[in-house]
Amino acid sequence: MAEFMDVHHGMKGITAEQFMEAHKADLAIESQEDVHFKRAWADPGSGEVYCLSEAPSAEAVQRVHERAGHKADEIHPVPLTA
Amino acid sequence: MAEFMDVHHGMKGITAEQFMEAHKADLAIESQEDVHFKRAWADPGSGEVYCLSEAPSAEAVQRVHERAGHKADEIHPVPLTA
Repeated sequence: MAEFMDVHHGMKGITAEQFMEAHKADLAIESQEDVHFKRAWADPGSGEVYCLSEAPSAEAVQRVHERAGHKADEIHPVPLTA
Repeated sequence: MAEFMDVHHGMKGITAEQFMEAHKADLAIESQEDVHFKRAWADPGSGEVYCLSEAPSAEAVQRVHERAGHKADEIHPVPLTA
């Protein structure tokens, strides 16, 4: 298991409700891929969304996001944390 | 005060030691600008570094990073969090 930061671009104007629904959709199915989404942050102004997860691989993170209806644009392992 | 996620590109090959030194350099002077860097993550493979902070403004975050010697490439307010 490793930590990953994934990024979604183009979510400009996302509301608090849409953001929470999207996050809940991930949480509802994450166990299918042994992924856990720990935190998420969104900037409705620029449309950037960041998700921090613990997962067996970047591919597993992407499979959860795809199934939940919102594919990530970038997924990076983040072995260094402070 | 608000939360911000800032991103540094091009830190490919950053070591654990360099990463911790950079983070400590921010922490050492953050109070000058009323900023607090809460977490940071790095992917030495792609060179992406993410910093989560609490700050009065994006400009205050940038002033700390600049003074510490590593200007951020993007700084986004993240009013939505989960």
